Amino acid sequence: MTITAEPRVEGKGGYKVVGTRPIRHDGLEKVTGQARYGADVHLPGMLHGKVLRSPHAHARIVSIDARRALAHPGVEAVITSAEFPQPSGKVADLGEGAMMNPKFLSNNTMAVGKVLYKGHPVAAVCAVSQHVAEEALSLIDVEYEVLPPVLNAMDAMKDDAPVLHERLFTADTPFVRPGGLRDDDDSAKGSNVSSHFVFEIGDLDKGFAEADVVVEREYRTKAVHQGYIEPHAATATWNRDGRITIWCSSQGQFAMRDQTALVLGVPASQIKVIPLEIGGGFGGKTLIYLEPVAALLSKKTGRPVKVAMSRQEVFEGTGPTSGSFMKVKMGATKEGRLTAAKATLIYEAGAYPGSPVNPGAQCMLGPYDIPNGRVEAYDVVINAPKVAAYRAPGAPAAAYAAESVVDELAEKLNMDPIDFRLLNGAKEGTRRITGPVFPRIGYLETLRATKDHPHYSAPLEGAYRGRGVASGFWFNGSGPSSATASVDHDGTVSLLEGSPDIGGTRAAVAMQMAEVLGLPAEDVHPSIGDTDSIGFTSNTGGSSVAFKTGWACYEAAQDIKRQMIERAAAIWDVSPGDVDLADGVFLHKSDPELRFTFKELAGLLLETGGPIVGRAAVDPRGVGGAFAAHVVDVEVDPETGKTQILRYTALQDAGTAVHPSYVEGQMQGGAVQGIGWALNEEYFFDDDGRMSNASFLDYRMPTSLDLPMIDTEIVEVPNPGHPYGVRGTGEIPIVPPMAAIANAIYKATGVRMTQLPMSPGAVLDALGRCEGKQDGG
Amino acid sequence: MTITAEPRVEGKGGYKVVGTRPIRHDGLEKVTGQARYGADVHLPGMLHGKVLRSPHAHARIVSIDARRALAHPGVEAVITSAEFPQPSGKVADLGEGAMMNPKFLSNNTMAVGKVLYKGHPVAAVCAVSQHVAEEALSLIDVEYEVLPPVLNAMDAMKDDAPVLHERLFTADTPFVRPGGLRDDDDSAKGSNVSSHFVFEIGDLDKGFAEADVVVEREYRTKAVHQGYIEPHAATATWNRDGRITIWCSSQGQFAMRDQTALVLGVPASQIKVIPLEIGGGFGGKTLIYLEPVAALLSKKTGRPVKVAMSRQEVFEGTGPTSGSFMKVKMGATKEGRLTAAKATLIYEAGAYPGSPVNPGAQCMLGPYDIPNGRVEAYDVVINAPKVAAYRAPGAPAAAYAAESVVDELAEKLNMDPIDFRLLNGAKEGTRRITGPVFPRIGYLETLRATKDHPHYSAPLEGAYRGRGVASGFWFNGSGPSSATASVDHDGTVSLLEGSPDIGGTRAAVAMQMAEVLGLPAEDVHPSIGDTDSIGFTSNTGGSSVAFKTGWACYEAAQDIKRQMIERAAAIWDVSPGDVDLADGVFLHKSDPELRFTFKELAGLLLETGGPIVGRAAVDPRGVGGAFAAHVVDVEVDPETGKTQILRYTALQDAGTAVHPSYVEGQMQGGAVQGIGWALNEEYFFDDDGRMSNASFLDYRMPTSLDLPMIDTEIVEVPNPGHPYGVRGTGEIPIVPPMAAIANAIYKATGVRMTQLPMSPGAVLDALGRCEGKQDGG
Repeated sequence: MTITAEPRVEGKGGYKVVGTRPIRHDGLEKVTGQARYGADVHLPGMLHGKVLRSPHAHARIVSIDARRALAHPGVEAVITSAEFPQPSGKVADLGEGAMMNPKFLSNNTMAVGKVLYKGHPVAAVCAVSQHVAEEALSLIDVEYEVLPPVLNAMDAMKDDAPVLHERLFTADTPFVRPGGLRDDDDSAKGSNVSSHFVFEIGDLDKGFAEADVVVEREYRTKAVHQGYIEPHAATATWNRDGRITIWCSSQGQFAMRDQTALVLGVPASQIKVIPLEIGGGFGGKTLIYLEPVAALLSKKTGRPVKVAMSRQEVFEGTGPTSGSFMKVKMGATKEGRLTAAKATLIYEAGAYPGSPVNPGAQCMLGPYDIPNGRVEAYDVVINAPKVAAYRAPGAPAAAYAAESVVDELAEKLNMDPIDFRLLNGAKEGTRRITGPVFPRIGYLETLRATKDHPHYSAPLEGAYRGRGVASGFWFNGSGPSSATASVDHDGTVSLLEGSPDIGGTRAAVAMQMAEVLGLPAEDVHPSIGDTDSIGFTSNTGGSSVAFKTGWACYEAAQDIKRQMIERAAAIWDVSPGDVDLADGVFLHKSDPELRFTFKELAGLLLETGGPIVGRAAVDPRGVGGAFAAHVVDVEVDPETGKTQILRYTALQDAGTAVHPSYVEGQMQGGAVQGIGWALNEEYFFDDDGRMSNASFLDYRMPTSLDLPMIDTEIVEVPNPGHPYGVRGTGEIPIVPPMAAIANAIYKATGVRMTQLPMSPGAVLDALGRCEGKQDGG
Repeated sequence: MTITAEPRVEGKGGYKVVGTRPIRHDGLEKVTGQARYGADVHLPGMLHGKVLRSPHAHARIVSIDARRALAHPGVEAVITSAEFPQPSGKVADLGEGAMMNPKFLSNNTMAVGKVLYKGHPVAAVCAVSQHVAEEALSLIDVEYEVLPPVLNAMDAMKDDAPVLHERLFTADTPFVRPGGLRDDDDSAKGSNVSSHFVFEIGDLDKGFAEADVVVEREYRTKAVHQGYIEPHAATATWNRDGRITIWCSSQGQFAMRDQTALVLGVPASQIKVIPLEIGGGFGGKTLIYLEPVAALLSKKTGRPVKVAMSRQEVFEGTGPTSGSFMKVKMGATKEGRLTAAKATLIYEAGAYPGSPVNPGAQCMLGPYDIPNGRVEAYDVVINAPKVAAYRAPGAPAAAYAAESVVDELAEKLNMDPIDFRLLNGAKEGTRRITGPVFPRIGYLETLRATKDHPHYSAPLEGAYRGRGVASGFWFNGSGPSSATASVDHDGTVSLLEGSPDIGGTRAAVAMQMAEVLGLPAEDVHPSIGDTDSIGFTSNTGGSSVAFKTGWACYEAAQDIKRQMIERAAAIWDVSPGDVDLADGVFLHKSDPELRFTFKELAGLLLETGGPIVGRAAVDPRGVGGAFAAHVVDVEVDPETGKTQILRYTALQDAGTAVHPSYVEGQMQGGAVQGIGWALNEEYFFDDDGRMSNASFLDYRMPTSLDLPMIDTEIVEVPNPGHPYGVRGTGEIPIVPPMAAIANAIYKATGVRMTQLPMSPGAVLDALGRCEGKQDGG
């Protein structure tokens, strides 16, 4: 049964498949509950593991005594950090530019000596059932010496702050992820600032001197969690020949493999990671948590072991994104030309170095052509869960700050905020403060579309109502990617690729293969391969998959096309150069008698020389940056401080939208996550660093009742760096919402909100202060 | 941990890896019980199915009433043939020369109208547990009208024999597998002979006229089972979008897929078959049995369903090989030159057409250069389980007959039996009676090695002891095969290929890839891909895998080598033509400074353009035939008739032995299966066609206590039709044993045994007759 949502409409750009909206290949399996996710693994003789986590945000581990647990019926093994080989603090290159400090990675998986956040693993147990394993946790006796925690970056940067890592020094490179550890055991006190770096362009003083109007503001945001539906789960077998197999859902089976290899001290090729369907990731499933734990428990017991997290463990033990402090100063001439910008970003990394302050710094002022600029960034460790990537990592908070300042500047200049952006917007050839020069991008086109959108000019009447607009930039990523494909004798093509499918990429990359071969999208059957079955493929992240794996599929399809043309030529006894493929038909360029449909030729392969398999492995340059602009109407309840979203429109340049429905889905999903971040979501820590809202009941994500329909408009400025003009689309839509909503709240209330979330309490508080100010003068 | 059995010894032919004996990649996983076989699949919500089988060998199904079963707690569904789409009797080409009659295939999976053997499926049930499913079988009420069965070919060919298939006519082509069904419902009575064909060469009458000595004998063999350790099991999910996934162990995931597609009437590409490890097949796991049943039960319930057979079901419901009747007449001059041979082979197909009488006829006289010959063959259906392929299908019984006659001829000519064979042996250029002309083969070399072997000249003293020798031929197969491989950044290679590994082929094909790349065998990690992940690959059968999939791996390795040379050249900024790969080192042909080990270059790939993936899809010609000669010493106990194997030596031409240990293992395993077939194994049917020994306790396979060490000697005559000279090796060793043992028993007792098995009772009986003859005549 094949269901097509609507009649196939020929795509733009003369494409037959790219630009249409077929049903995703994995759709029915997912909506009928038949898809297998991380926890859906059952192996004969399998044991169940659970992780014992620290109740303290900062403490020394004095002793761990597992004897009572091991004596409990049904308990098979307990492991602690003693089972982990302790890697050096030397940074490892994971082969795709992903630099990792194996010591931090290992210690975040299982604490050594100290615990650095509430939820930090200190031991793990496995037993015959999950219930026995849970019970056994309480039988592991851990003695702690509690230390004072440091719970935000501003405190952590103080001279007398408690220090998390005794040997951490401040690196001065923009590659913050590794963090730095002194080789020696020098007695000099470590720092909580793991890196500090500056980007500069032009002459800042001159720039501000030329400005007629200057706005300078400070902003704060809180840690928020990616909130994926599926908790982490990993199942592992460690065979006696040292071969390890891991089943898990992640954003990259190769990243899981290589990180686990680093932590376990085994060659990567000894580990096979089998990807399962992923129930959301948003960047949060790019780090290992349970994989080495399950593997070591399997090594100890000789049996398969599954470990799955509860929601509380997800909140307390896996990466939210950073809380941040930002300071932005921008100046413009009275004609509205930006002359200078200066920004400081201080991002909380959680317990180990590696906040997304670097991409935040790179994206913050990306939409603008600014001749003189300086961006300074700090990565700071605190006693909270180690952050992980979250959709356009670092950029949403940065854009919240910058786009609030831009809004205020435009207001002071009495300019329409979109006109202000059109005047200063980045375009092909613009050099960013952080260095790179833009290729062909679609920011101005997106701004024009926003200005032309009916929403922007629609009347909005009523008290405490306001319309806000903001834009955003995300550079998008690429990376190595591989695909193989084989032609089935019934005329379909089986595609094996390496990118876990979070947002419909299976469809998007299969469509690019189908386009080359002149097949309907449904006739290319995509699967995601395990690490032993497919060439290295970098993470599903950075909005890279439709671009890089789409390209790999394009190349693998070309490889198939070439071979099928050769086969047709061999059958007809003509030169391959005289054979062409057009609209799914192989034909001789001058003899109309000689023609095969793809299906006909596919049916002949096995008797004319054997099957045909295509392959490609790419690491494409040519990434096109993504720009978005969002318009939002809000109404603020002055009694409760609650902000209601009345209308929301998201626009973005998607390059060529391979599957417009899934681009629209990304735009809606990103906007909604941004709305949650803007209005409600935050980690509440008590003074001891314990999260007090670690459940979906208390951690307030938006539900459909909180939201209007999110309208979307795709702007298509094809990326000249990709065969089909593809840009990444999945992350950029989370960048503008917070600033757009803050700007709308300002229009509704006259108050500029400089902290996230803009929750009812915070708004009420700000309204009070503001009214107080008005009263007081 | 890497265990190497013995120090790496450089292989013959200048090879570094081919010809050495590394530990198989899957070895430790298998010996430690961690490998996953057909039944080791557990899916969330999985149901358990069981098949209800006919208690009668021949009966009309009057009615099936499942109401009581469906009312039983825990029973989820019952299916009968009503759920199966009934395909036409038109032969389908499964795309690799495997012709199948979909009606027969379907009806063997689930009987329609009539049951044709005891054990024939009539219904299937699934329930919450295997025990409930088993209990529910007895609650399905089936009314039968019992018909007289026909239990052997000679009876089935009689005019008044009960007819199994009303519309079956006798085809006169050598392609017996399809069988023939009349399109019309003609009232002419059907035949039990599904095909009858003749091969001829020269002038038979002239040939026999030139002979000075003629021997003519009749032989009978009984059905014997392949006796693989792992019973059949299949697990299936039928998703609501029509996509079907099947987990099973088989000799070919694509064959399982395509046969299931045929029976279910769905496109092959809608089905994904995931191969698990296979616990033996020997040809018996090339047909579907449970796959469509599990799929239809899943369709009906919306849940995964697993169906696994008991040992009794394996014996009664899956393919043994044919019982046979053969008549052979051969003539030779007094100098020992063969002048003519005539043979008739009548093979029982079981309930549906398709005995291996065709390959039996092709191989029977293959070892000899016979100027005048005629081979006539019949495929006959009887009321017994449909036969399946069994190791060199058809050839062992045929060789038993022919090699017994050759032994008798040599005796009458007073010639050493090996000398007689050396005089008449086939060599390059010899035309077989069945048509083909031999390429370079190693029969004469194998015979000379046999004559030179110490065993052949060792003294053998004592009463009732005798030494026998026999040879055999198997043509070996090929077929489409695919492989992809990717270079890991730690310098190893992940190989994905499509051939289920029965006898160590994973190692044998990985070694051929390693040889090209200059890597140790352990650095190529092979996996077997599912049907969505790998190009079409024909069955693991016909001793084809080391040849065809080895070739695919050789080509995929060349694809990798080419790309790595290009990459090295790009890094060095030189021409690819100046770069070479030797002993695992890439080097510039004239600049000794420019060199990378494979590992070094592998580590640079991701930062110099991306990963490298290789692929190949082949359907190679150039198969080299296999020849073997076995020598056996026996002692017959005249009191009990029991034959003890005292010493056994197997020799064969393996072409280039890629992994000599696994070739030797095949030789030992084939010899042992032949010994079982020769001395003990048989299906005992009662008069109603019920098998009375359907267990391993009663079906007497040889154990280690029954056997001496089987000595082996590999003769290597490289096959010029393969890059590394590979021939198939797995099947030929089962061809000579029965004749060798029969010839040895003759030497020990003076009695020529013309029926298999030569069990104690049969030998005693023959001894009695013989002694009676000696007394009386």
